[in-house]
Amino acid sequence: MAIILGVDPGSRITGYGIIRAEGRHIEYIDSGCIRVGDKPMAQRLQSIFHSLATLIGEYRPEEFAIEQVFMARNPDSALKLGQARGAAIVSAANSGLAVHEYSARQVKQAVVGKGSADKSQVQHMVQALLSLSRKPQADAADALAIALCHAHMSQSVLKVAASGGKVRSGRVRQQ
Amino acid sequence: MAIILGVDPGSRITGYGIIRAEGRHIEYIDSGCIRVGDKPMAQRLQSIFHSLATLIGEYRPEEFAIEQVFMARNPDSALKLGQARGAAIVSAANSGLAVHEYSARQVKQAVVGKGSADKSQVQHMVQALLSLSRKPQADAADALAIALCHAHMSQSVLKVAASGGKVRSGRVRQQ
Repeated sequence: MAIILGVDPGSRITGYGIIRAEGRHIEYIDSGCIRVGDKPMAQRLQSIFHSLATLIGEYRPEEFAIEQVFMARNPDSALKLGQARGAAIVSAANSGLAVHEYSARQVKQAVVGKGSADKSQVQHMVQALLSLSRKPQADAADALAIALCHAHMSQSVLKVAASGGKVRSGRVRQQ
Repeated sequence: MAIILGVDPGSRITGYGIIRAEGRHIEYIDSGCIRVGDKPMAQRLQSIFHSLATLIGEYRPEEFAIEQVFMARNPDSALKLGQARGAAIVSAANSGLAVHEYSARQVKQAVVGKGSADKSQVQHMVQALLSLSRKPQADAADALAIALCHAHMSQSVLKVAASGGKVRSGRVRQQ
């Protein structure tokens, strides 16, 4: 296992979280927010693209994980979210990273142990699992949770593969 | 005026059209489709990003125009369209191009003279305005129509500016 970049894209704030996972040992590296709320749309997307490219260049993650969107609230916010996701995914793919997607339910299940957990529980567990001195900002916490989910899922897949078993289809979606 | 790249992004087919506009004289340069329908999502977005970057490198457009989306059909298609738009816009912005957006109504008004024109009328007028020997494919025609709309709008803006008048706000949206 290796360095994982988790990203929670948004048209105003894109959270990112970087962890190192070696077997069961997981270490916090960095997290934060790319805030682009005040800029014109094209500049927002470019900022997301460039900021992630810079982070990828700096930390050299081997894995990229992002939340899968099943049900967007409405067409307008879905379009804006889609644009931000597009910029983020192109940035990762452009750096040669495979893109892994997990549903919100999978992320919550992996981090809190309950698919219906709320945001504050996710923040709390991210802080606990990574032994952070304070709660990360909400979007950064979500991004760290996505990275933790990927570490967990990859670990599960490796264990099943090592035991000669079959990985249940759909557990790790690589697109 | 100069070389204009118009793009009509989609999650399966992204149309592009390139024209040269010198005053009232408009010349067809190239058009076509970036077809990514069968690939995984991240690869689709990367294909859109790279194909446009290649076209920009080849034809060196000074202007980039894209259709503005007001009302997407549903959240799911809006998300997919948003992702394709995000990849396209980042590709243009990354190459230093300003991104201009026009509504479908503005594009139809500029090309057909009627904001409620249908797709076949747009195809027909694009063929006529650019003296093409045959109808361009539908997505390529839409992209050429967007480029023609930008040429038309810039021309209108220049005329108004030259006469010392004021440009009505919202005619050319630069984002």
